[in-house]
Amino acid sequence: MNPSNHDFLVKPHLITRGLRPENQETPIHFLEANETPISLTYRRNHFPYPLLSIQSYFLTIKGSVKNRVTLHYNQITSMPSRTVTTLMECSGNKRAYFDPKVFGEQWTEGAISQGNWKGVSLSTLLSITGVNNGAREIVFQGEDSGVKNGQHVQYERGLPIEKALDPNVIVAWEHNQKPISPKHGFPFRLIVPGWYGMASVKWLKTIRVIDHPFSGPFQTDDYVYYPHKEQNKGSFPVTTNRINSVIQQPLDRQILKPGQHQITGLAWTGEGIITSVEISLDNGATWKTAILQDTPQKYRWVKWSYSHVFEKNQDYNIKVRAFDSIGQSQPDKAFWNRNGYGNNEVSQINIQIE
Amino acid sequence: MNPSNHDFLVKPHLITRGLRPENQETPIHFLEANETPISLTYRRNHFPYPLLSIQSYFLTIKGSVKNRVTLHYNQITSMPSRTVTTLMECSGNKRAYFDPKVFGEQWTEGAISQGNWKGVSLSTLLSITGVNNGAREIVFQGEDSGVKNGQHVQYERGLPIEKALDPNVIVAWEHNQKPISPKHGFPFRLIVPGWYGMASVKWLKTIRVIDHPFSGPFQTDDYVYYPHKEQNKGSFPVTTNRINSVIQQPLDRQILKPGQHQITGLAWTGEGIITSVEISLDNGATWKTAILQDTPQKYRWVKWSYSHVFEKNQDYNIKVRAFDSIGQSQPDKAFWNRNGYGNNEVSQINIQIE
Repeated sequence: MNPSNHDFLVKPHLITRGLRPENQETPIHFLEANETPISLTYRRNHFPYPLLSIQSYFLTIKGSVKNRVTLHYNQITSMPSRTVTTLMECSGNKRAYFDPKVFGEQWTEGAISQGNWKGVSLSTLLSITGVNNGAREIVFQGEDSGVKNGQHVQYERGLPIEKALDPNVIVAWEHNQKPISPKHGFPFRLIVPGWYGMASVKWLKTIRVIDHPFSGPFQTDDYVYYPHKEQNKGSFPVTTNRINSVIQQPLDRQILKPGQHQITGLAWTGEGIITSVEISLDNGATWKTAILQDTPQKYRWVKWSYSHVFEKNQDYNIKVRAFDSIGQSQPDKAFWNRNGYGNNEVSQINIQIE
Repeated sequence: MNPSNHDFLVKPHLITRGLRPENQETPIHFLEANETPISLTYRRNHFPYPLLSIQSYFLTIKGSVKNRVTLHYNQITSMPSRTVTTLMECSGNKRAYFDPKVFGEQWTEGAISQGNWKGVSLSTLLSITGVNNGAREIVFQGEDSGVKNGQHVQYERGLPIEKALDPNVIVAWEHNQKPISPKHGFPFRLIVPGWYGMASVKWLKTIRVIDHPFSGPFQTDDYVYYPHKEQNKGSFPVTTNRINSVIQQPLDRQILKPGQHQITGLAWTGEGIITSVEISLDNGATWKTAILQDTPQKYRWVKWSYSHVFEKNQDYNIKVRAFDSIGQSQPDKAFWNRNGYGNNEVSQINIQIE
């Protein structure tokens, strides 16, 4: 009957955006570790979870290949493995912040996690099957399926063969040193570092090599940037993670005591490497350089911090923007698109000092 | 190694707003039961959790009383008990929706829960001590304390004696048929039905009768409506829950299939009883009556629903407003106040039909 310290354990939770299907975001403001625990890794689903059995689990590689193969779980997990630490970000991350607002899951800043994935390079698998001349895309089919626009469809995505042959693109079976959990793709998940999460197909069942562009509903309807509200003119596909950042602490609209506080956060980019992070405390008039906590590495976020002495009885607007090695930075205003993908505008919060 | 159904259990979580101190809101959109499970009951703290021991737990009633008493936990829990089912709502609920935005915890719609509390009426306790003529307020001190505006303070609140003598105001030791959990006030919590949550003092330690208005920092600085940004003119205290409602389903900005859908939600009021709930699907031009799922009862929320056939390829704005037995309704626009309390403007969502 007496409370123990355990009763006072204070911990963050996934932020529930939807349950049918399950869509929950990472409490990104309250994470300290670089490797997001599996329990706090964001969950983004299009359909109910598929129930899979490992005993009968075979992965088929077919289509425009020299030798079609069907491999058992044990055969794949015996192959030479590669480990990739990468962030994974839903292309709808920060959708809630578009102005004008758009429809769809209202992700704030937590549709992003970072994990360690172990698997076999897709290029190794394709070296077993061989690939015909003229092969153009690889189509990955997951076991998740359901009704979309009146049709029963599987989740399927195509990846250009050039990206597919990058040795960091792996068919993974371990996530953070454990078998991939059922909610994150058990037994196999394609991992495509540098691309938004829709490319990293969960519950991977079939790999198909094709000699033409793929046009499934998750390729040519969803995960497309439509710049206009009413017409499809100027549309183009969602691919790599845009350069982006988040302020983890303080929180937007937080009230703090006067004195020194650390502003902390994360920055990342899909191509290239983060080179610097800048902070403005005066509505963007001047910018200071933040300290990067680690050496930036490809496909990973980098933690940054900036320390400042805040004065009594004042409100502050704090902005942050990241720069990368291929000359990209965050725009002041997001590129608005109808389905709300790739929001990477300059991050900002407002705080009040008591 | 095979996933079981347990691995696919999909459940909502508290929504983390802060961890030091802990502030987490109820995932109100995903609750079906009328009694909010304790694990999903919102947590709102000003200070770290106090560590209490039941063995040495005494409650003191003192001040302007005929007989000062100090009662042990076992003495209080042996008294005649009363059970009250009531909603509890933080006065900062919906703070995130003020326009212009205000500082403080950015609660969306889930700083509200409903629970069943068992305890002894405060009036019974006061009949033991007697109360001197001229007694005006009862001050409740909790065990939680910390630094506020440079001073070390306990959490303390005053309640007018007229309200304090309402038999539904209880000193509770059970919450949802169990001893109150450490995070929600163990061993004793004052429960003040019809008032915002700041009145329901947790970890209750001392009850003091006074003959003048109480002026602690949580009485005359916080939990005060300040209508102006820069000056304190026209301020008045936060007391009873304003009439209010929430749309639970669908979610704001959700994309739905054409056809019939239920709009569901909750409505409540601090004084009086909910009499009706109205829905508008045309930006407030016309209003239809929703169905109340239960008989409205004082201090409890009532579930409502409204069924509608939605047409293909259309966006809808859905508004809801509640009415109560003492002539109150929700305003179209919230009463803006500097600290962001009591936002009860007409609730609305926008949805898109595919």
